[in-house]
Amino acid sequence: MLSEFPHVAWIGKSQGVFRGTMFATKCSRQIGIVPRSASRKKCMLFWRLSIHNFALAILNRSGSIQDMKSLTEHLWFEVPNRRGFVNITDTVEKLVKKSGVQEGLCLVNAMHITASVFINDNESGLHHDYEVWLEKLAPHSPTNQYHHNRTGEDNADAHLKRQVMGREVVVAITNGRLDFGPWEQIFYGEFDGNRKKRALVKIIGE
Amino acid sequence: MLSEFPHVAWIGKSQGVFRGTMFATKCSRQIGIVPRSASRKKCMLFWRLSIHNFALAILNRSGSIQDMKSLTEHLWFEVPNRRGFVNITDTVEKLVKKSGVQEGLCLVNAMHITASVFINDNESGLHHDYEVWLEKLAPHSPTNQYHHNRTGEDNADAHLKRQVMGREVVVAITNGRLDFGPWEQIFYGEFDGNRKKRALVKIIGE
Amino acid sequence: MLSEFPHVAWIGKSQGVFRGTMFATKCSRQIGIVPRSASRKKCMLFWRLSIHNFALAILNRSGSIQDMKSLTEHLWFEVPNRRGFVNITDTVEKLVKKSGVQEGLCLVNAMHITASVFINDNESGLHHDYEVWLEKLAPHSPTNQYHHNRTGEDNADAHLKRQVMGREVVVAITNGRLDFGPWEQIFYGEFDGNRKKRALVKIIGE
Repeated sequence: MLSEFPHVAWIGKSQGVFRGTMFATKCSRQIGIVPRSASRKKCMLFWRLSIHNFALAILNRSGSIQDMKSLTEHLWFEVPNRRGFVNITDTVEKLVKKSGVQEGLCLVNAMHITASVFINDNESGLHHDYEVWLEKLAPHSPTNQYHHNRTGEDNADAHLKRQVMGREVVVAITNGRLDFGPWEQIFYGEFDGNRKKRALVKIIGE
Repeated sequence: MLSEFPHVAWIGKSQGVFRGTMFATKCSRQIGIVPRSASRKKCMLFWRLSIHNFALAILNRSGSIQDMKSLTEHLWFEVPNRRGFVNITDTVEKLVKKSGVQEGLCLVNAMHITASVFINDNESGLHHDYEVWLEKLAPHSPTNQYHHNRTGEDNADAHLKRQVMGREVVVAITNGRLDFGPWEQIFYGEFDGNRKKRALVKIIGE
Repeated sequence: MLSEFPHVAWIGKSQGVFRGTMFATKCSRQIGIVPRSASRKKCMLFWRLSIHNFALAILNRSGSIQDMKSLTEHLWFEVPNRRGFVNITDTVEKLVKKSGVQEGLCLVNAMHITASVFINDNESGLHHDYEVWLEKLAPHSPTNQYHHNRTGEDNADAHLKRQVMGREVVVAITNGRLDFGPWEQIFYGEFDGNRKKRALVKIIGE
């Protein structure tokens, strides 16, 4: 960084402005030499000038440092069936706006291990296909085919389905918006519903 | 940012304090005017005062800038079977503490392409179900059903199983802790064990 | 932070250097006392010395503050078949270098919902196995088995295959490079090709 501000680097190293030493010029960001003939008063003026230029440089630098911002929100769901998909794209987009983050990442994850967050098409036929397909890959019944259900649960299939659909998505934030392709939409995928469950939105960036 | 510190903005623009010019007052963060009647000595005092206030403002500002922090650690595993799941939640939680990150993201990924990192339940019945289910979706035998095994390997099924279970998880860090739902636990999933393999933990945030 | 720089904390609080007050010494970062016997000229010298030390301290501090950096790039693909895998590791590695990020995260995601980005082996036999396996898990034909295809599409299977292989990868950046295990390579996975599609690379860090 110091190489960006040669006069600042200089003022950091020097112990004052004396005849024959360098000083910082304001506009050019270059380094001048205090004339050997300069009076003591003139030396002081050069010194004051350099301190001011130092102030300017640090200020410019500070102004360009962006604090990292973050936002954390929980989304609540109560899907009134065992399985279902909820489009949460608009909700997440609003949270990105709220966060003030212009460039960063947005993590959205199910906080329960029998649910998913995934990105795909907002098309009801496809959602039907997912339902049929997941039930084929990891059928709910017979429930006694799963050791997990010996704990008294009947949701082992939900733990399996969620691995196929995924726990989370990470979406780029560019110019303050979700950086999405033409059809990308974020869904909460419920595989063991009829109760209150949560997803987490975590946004970090600047 | 400059608008937060009017006297700093001013001192950056000015080249000194003279009669009739503004100066920065300490407590109020407002800008005063050097009286036209002020002596040269008084002018110098105002100037020194302003430099000090500038120092204060920059210091306050610097104090509020949080460095982005990061931490990188490799976790080593040697699962004594072809397949197995290892709970790494406590290890990752300790690394989050070690990183000092309060708000950020924690990436945990397998560094090998025949292993997974995933989040699900710490329940042995379910782990048995995963084992049975994955073996049904992508059976190990007969090994010659896979072209990949013509390379001399017998682990093609492991490459497939790992895609179902996933390579990585990204977990939010909130208030210095993994921001988890009630049952979320992180597992290293081995599908081609009996040798040393690694997972990566990368934490970034502030 | 102020505790790191006792003389800076002091100079922020003081209004000048007078006889009997403290001043900042350069090398030791300790605080000295201006002798009560010091001349006014000497006092001024102490004050100038302290301002310089303040400059040094702030500069050192600023130098260690890293701006968060980010980079966003779209990668274009036109896979000349319905399905295919494209190795994009080198392209992503170059973008990491371009970003200047030393420590951070690199998100790579398909921007289309019938394509994947995943990490696995650069081995053609395995790619063949993926093709066969995915076609078994989510067959393309008969296309009328999927409700989604009633919209006029024939790509429902591609939406399913992409969920198995995943939408995105998040890769750690360490020392300015993708922090990869021995065989990790990034692939764009096309399941509905013969047209222009994109993947997104988003890099954040410092």
